[in-house]
Amino acid sequence: MRKLEELQSLIASSVAELKYPEYPAELYEPIKYILALGGKRMRPALLLMACDLFGGDVEAALPPALAIEVFHNFTLMHDDIMDNAPKRRGKTTVHEKWNNNVAILSGDVMLIEGYKLMMQVRDNILRTVLDVFNDTAVGVCEGQQLDMNFETISNITIPEYINMIRLKTAVVLGGALKIGALIGEAEMKDAELLCSFGEYLGIAFQLQDDILDVYGNPEKFGKQVGGDIISNKKTYLLIKAQELVKGTDAEELSRWISLPAFDAAEKVAAVTQLYNSVNIRQYAEAEMQAYAEKAFEALEQINLPEESKQYLRDFADGLLVREY
Amino acid sequence: MRKLEELQSLIASSVAELKYPEYPAELYEPIKYILALGGKRMRPALLLMACDLFGGDVEAALPPALAIEVFHNFTLMHDDIMDNAPKRRGKTTVHEKWNNNVAILSGDVMLIEGYKLMMQVRDNILRTVLDVFNDTAVGVCEGQQLDMNFETISNITIPEYINMIRLKTAVVLGGALKIGALIGEAEMKDAELLCSFGEYLGIAFQLQDDILDVYGNPEKFGKQVGGDIISNKKTYLLIKAQELVKGTDAEELSRWISLPAFDAAEKVAAVTQLYNSVNIRQYAEAEMQAYAEKAFEALEQINLPEESKQYLRDFADGLLVREY
Repeated sequence: MRKLEELQSLIASSVAELKYPEYPAELYEPIKYILALGGKRMRPALLLMACDLFGGDVEAALPPALAIEVFHNFTLMHDDIMDNAPKRRGKTTVHEKWNNNVAILSGDVMLIEGYKLMMQVRDNILRTVLDVFNDTAVGVCEGQQLDMNFETISNITIPEYINMIRLKTAVVLGGALKIGALIGEAEMKDAELLCSFGEYLGIAFQLQDDILDVYGNPEKFGKQVGGDIISNKKTYLLIKAQELVKGTDAEELSRWISLPAFDAAEKVAAVTQLYNSVNIRQYAEAEMQAYAEKAFEALEQINLPEESKQYLRDFADGLLVREY
Repeated sequence: MRKLEELQSLIASSVAELKYPEYPAELYEPIKYILALGGKRMRPALLLMACDLFGGDVEAALPPALAIEVFHNFTLMHDDIMDNAPKRRGKTTVHEKWNNNVAILSGDVMLIEGYKLMMQVRDNILRTVLDVFNDTAVGVCEGQQLDMNFETISNITIPEYINMIRLKTAVVLGGALKIGALIGEAEMKDAELLCSFGEYLGIAFQLQDDILDVYGNPEKFGKQVGGDIISNKKTYLLIKAQELVKGTDAEELSRWISLPAFDAAEKVAAVTQLYNSVNIRQYAEAEMQAYAEKAFEALEQINLPEESKQYLRDFADGLLVREY
């Protein structure tokens, strides 16, 4: 099996070789720009990894892997407009550098270009692969819509939250793995198990991200601790805390959430203490662990040699214990 | 052959039967809303017509025809954001009724839903049909970008303008006809000739639209005469006039274009007189006629019985002499 890092750098060099027309420049320059911003190229690397695990030709899987990366960057380009985000990976976002119209239309073309790349598979799996791609794409859009809706809804339940992160983050990991497996001539049953592995792992990963925001080591995590608390982001931790805190603590939590101006460090400390008072970290870790276990259960059922399963276990372990 | 009106009403009833999920409502309500606004359903009807002409099963061609209509409405939803349009077919546009984010994301889902419908063709033509759809979709986006660019460019040439309307308006007519022909088991050569027929006809139709805006009978045309003149829209007429008028007439035309405030009727009358002074109508009609002839030349080469060709000639004649 090829190392994940090797697959990621194969993707990086292939992305750099993607060619787009010169004219109209406003349509194609932003595509080249956002694709050149970098990133870990994790989603397309997963597609290659799945193909490789089933003994498929990694080179043949490159165009569909690039399709996943182009699709992912299309979602970023449109999400950045919707989220009014000025920066992406430290650089100016497309709608800020050009304008909203350019970002809308370039994004549209990227989605189509994604389909063109995804179609570069054998005839006998073309329909199946595109069905998976369609479902993945719709799922990601639904996830983004739910994420935006949740900003203005006060009573989100944990199952609603899990469903949102599944759609917004996890289905594309599952979809990439499934498509890679199909290109590697896996049986449909195994491709679907690998898809479930990816989806559950994606949910666990997002839950870990929620935990790290509050309890992570800022030096290893690389983000400001408590960023989600400062912005009242409805993470697993906040939703669960709102369920559990009672009486004056509930009032205190509501007060922090509704305060228009505050000292950031003070808010982070106060809300973290409220979280601690109802053991939020333990709940969140248990939920994360439950999804990790579902991922491993799916993995065990896949018809792959032990060595390949160990590769996937190691991959999952690496993903889930990264930065405490 | 089935009458065009019959095909249009078949599309209308099939559009009404399209089903989308209830949740998230912000994603799917706008899709139902824009599809229910009506319209002539000309593009999908052309797809069915092409299939019918080659003896294909019109019912089997319905999903791809609906794909063209869903795709077309995706472009309208996103174009309306970009053009800041408050109304579409007399009703509030999606971005006005909801907001820009909803219109961006619902539009994205519509494009994906378009692919899902377009995939409902026989395996042996799936790749070819999707290739045509991809090219059509990219073309329409390029056309929209060029159209937006032209708003702020002063020296557009006639070939640049023709290329813009070809991409923005004509390629989707050609694409719909080509896909319909392929579903009807036409030879590729005939499908491509029918595609050319549609593209040339689309260009001729748009040129006629430019002419009608100034010289049409407002009662038959149904639009305000001179709307393009009032808004300084860069039509064939204006671009050609800017090429041809000289001396004080050129200054006069520039003055009207740069006036921030004016009496609409006065501007329309003055600019029309400038157009007349250099025979713009004759140039435009000759250009339109040249594209109509290219359409008829392509048509003559198609391997179809005389009766079918006559049907297409009648269709083209009906389209090009509609409202003088």
